[in-house]
Amino acid sequence: MALVVQKYGGSSLESADRIKRVAERIVATKKAGNHVVVVCSAMGDTTDELLDLAEQVNPVPPEREMDMLLTAGERISNALVAMAISAQGAEAWSFTGSQAGVVTTAVHGNARIIDVTPSRVTDALEQGYVALVAGFQGVSQDTKDITTLGRGGSDTTAVALAAALNADVCEIYSDVDGVYTADPRIVGNARKLDTVPYEEMLELAASGSKILHLRSVEYARRYGVPISVRSSYSDKPGTTVTGSIEEIPVEQALITGVAHDRSEAKITITGVPDHAGAAARIFRTVADAEIDIDMVLQNISNTAGRTDITFTLSKANGPKAVSELEKIKTELDFSAVLYDDHVGKVSLVGAGMRSHPGVTASFCEALAKAGVNIEIINTSEIRISVLIRDAQLDDAVRAIHEAFELGGDEEAVVYAGSGR
Amino acid sequence: MALVVQKYGGSSLESADRIKRVAERIVATKKAGNHVVVVCSAMGDTTDELLDLAEQVNPVPPEREMDMLLTAGERISNALVAMAISAQGAEAWSFTGSQAGVVTTAVHGNARIIDVTPSRVTDALEQGYVALVAGFQGVSQDTKDITTLGRGGSDTTAVALAAALNADVCEIYSDVDGVYTADPRIVGNARKLDTVPYEEMLELAASGSKILHLRSVEYARRYGVPISVRSSYSDKPGTTVTGSIEEIPVEQALITGVAHDRSEAKITITGVPDHAGAAARIFRTVADAEIDIDMVLQNISNTAGRTDITFTLSKANGPKAVSELEKIKTELDFSAVLYDDHVGKVSLVGAGMRSHPGVTASFCEALAKAGVNIEIINTSEIRISVLIRDAQLDDAVRAIHEAFELGGDEEAVVYAGSGR
Repeated sequence: MALVVQKYGGSSLESADRIKRVAERIVATKKAGNHVVVVCSAMGDTTDELLDLAEQVNPVPPEREMDMLLTAGERISNALVAMAISAQGAEAWSFTGSQAGVVTTAVHGNARIIDVTPSRVTDALEQGYVALVAGFQGVSQDTKDITTLGRGGSDTTAVALAAALNADVCEIYSDVDGVYTADPRIVGNARKLDTVPYEEMLELAASGSKILHLRSVEYARRYGVPISVRSSYSDKPGTTVTGSIEEIPVEQALITGVAHDRSEAKITITGVPDHAGAAARIFRTVADAEIDIDMVLQNISNTAGRTDITFTLSKANGPKAVSELEKIKTELDFSAVLYDDHVGKVSLVGAGMRSHPGVTASFCEALAKAGVNIEIINTSEIRISVLIRDAQLDDAVRAIHEAFELGGDEEAVVYAGSGR
Repeated sequence: MALVVQKYGGSSLESADRIKRVAERIVATKKAGNHVVVVCSAMGDTTDELLDLAEQVNPVPPEREMDMLLTAGERISNALVAMAISAQGAEAWSFTGSQAGVVTTAVHGNARIIDVTPSRVTDALEQGYVALVAGFQGVSQDTKDITTLGRGGSDTTAVALAAALNADVCEIYSDVDGVYTADPRIVGNARKLDTVPYEEMLELAASGSKILHLRSVEYARRYGVPISVRSSYSDKPGTTVTGSIEEIPVEQALITGVAHDRSEAKITITGVPDHAGAAARIFRTVADAEIDIDMVLQNISNTAGRTDITFTLSKANGPKAVSELEKIKTELDFSAVLYDDHVGKVSLVGAGMRSHPGVTASFCEALAKAGVNIEIINTSEIRISVLIRDAQLDDAVRAIHEAFELGGDEEAVVYAGSGR
């Protein structure tokens, strides 16, 4: 008997009516002869409403209590889905992350899963119940406090459960019906991919694709869990993320898709004295503020023995990074900190570039032909990323998609609200 | 160091603003040098909103899931109060009933507390935190499922915690500032009582007084927990429920107060053949439908060897009781089931009636003088209750309050919304 894990996001659960439709799909999956485990996020607006209430009573709420508060949202949605399933002829039990055996670190608001021991879930399945598990939460191994898992937490819960239960597949439902060769809202003939190997999906996720969160793909890769990306609004097959690029014969390796990212900003520190340790001091300062850095560019020093150091980071962290760097300006004796949030990143991903020389050249030629200037370039074995002006992102995505002939014949279907 | 348990009901917590005011009181109690444990009900409308959502997805929701759903309400309010306390200079941790060690039977929607082992609460107090505990909930000893405690559940949680922690007092906060000699909205010169012994409070609660739930008073009596009934809108001292009537010297025993109850209905089964077993069959039928009976009256049989049997019950159970009795009409060969929901009950409570003969006579004379007809009379050692026409309830309450000189000189203060 196959075991299916399904995850439904907040927009799939935003009303009693949507909840009933989700329940229909779950009951159908059960009646088709599967064991079914379901992970639900909180209903559409719940988390925002709770955050708003919290802010009214305390502008800087203690993190332990924020986790106690927010986890009520998933409790509500999972209980309601269980009730809806019961109304439609199957039986279901809902569990909190803690009850389902999701054990985590003690970091409130951003806990990591240490282990999953889902014995109560297994019992429920053996007794013929559908098991619902609240996503985005667990219990701290050390303190026994309730924790939330940070960004992508519900996807990660679903994949972690699928791994622990040896599920046949983990289906992630949203309002997007699969992984495309590019964002279908930008590229009219973007093609839906049937399958994507784990490493390519990791690169796409890291390059701006919002369909799956990086951590859940990494978790799936490590434990060999196939992820099926599907729409909760249709019955079309989605995209399956599975397999390693190592399994693909060299000649069949392809260029898979184009991702873009509007969420980054660029910081340039100018006139940095060119001695050992200056760059290290700069990056340590940013790291100590718990800010992640993406692309880095360091110019060759000029005749005055000074250089510019440029890096990108999430826009959300921009102001904080600038402020921390201003504090070491005198100490390092650099000229200025420049901040530019009109940048965008576009990336080409595909195992095929390992065996096909000239991909980088074709990539840059396509951008040049479209009049797009490259500011920073960064590559991995299966990815090329460039930083450009954000106003040119759409043109760049289309130019690269065209140059590598990624398009299909059919016009891509774009659902209202797609893009998560 | 004294240990105080405080309980706040839903109307005291109905908005972010009310929550902040409750937090002020809690912080003041802590800063006065006490250990403080707080039990919060769900915020004002939350439980109703959740019930409404539940009904939309399933008109007859499974009870286990209803408990999972409703307990989210208390989780939210307790976390928000903890946050508000933190914003005002003290520290607080919130706990679910399960985390606080409230262990119950497995009956969803109406679980009974089996034991309270509040080790995490004690740890929090020892570390200088205010401990918040979600009311109305616990965890089943057998199934480990989350349960809710039924009517009066939050009051019971508070008293049970106070007992387990050996608290100095359990303060129950609502929008009523104490226990009065009668409902101040009916009797203008009703007096607030300073103290009430447990047995009298039990009788008042059983007779319609909504200030404290019967089960929480019984729990307090059994474990010797003093209950202080106070208003969350003022700093006036409230009424303390403590002590036994056995401790009151006979000459000092008093008549304490008048309670009234509009929630009952009357069922009369007419023309019941007067043989052993007929009454038993009637009461067993009602009991099997899980319906409680209050007052009973059986007439002396008439010349035809038939009698009428009358009893009262909660209006909510009326239709079901009638329908179950109709089913045995042929079997018992009685004439009819009559249903009357225009009845009301008025009761006089006081340990003094044990030692003062003539109380019953004075009681009945007062009603007669007010033109109130008695339909059923029922007494205990410290209580007289009568069933009358509900339209005459206010007059009856005033007449008895007057006849026993219970009034004070000051006009009673009636808060908007008082009466819980």
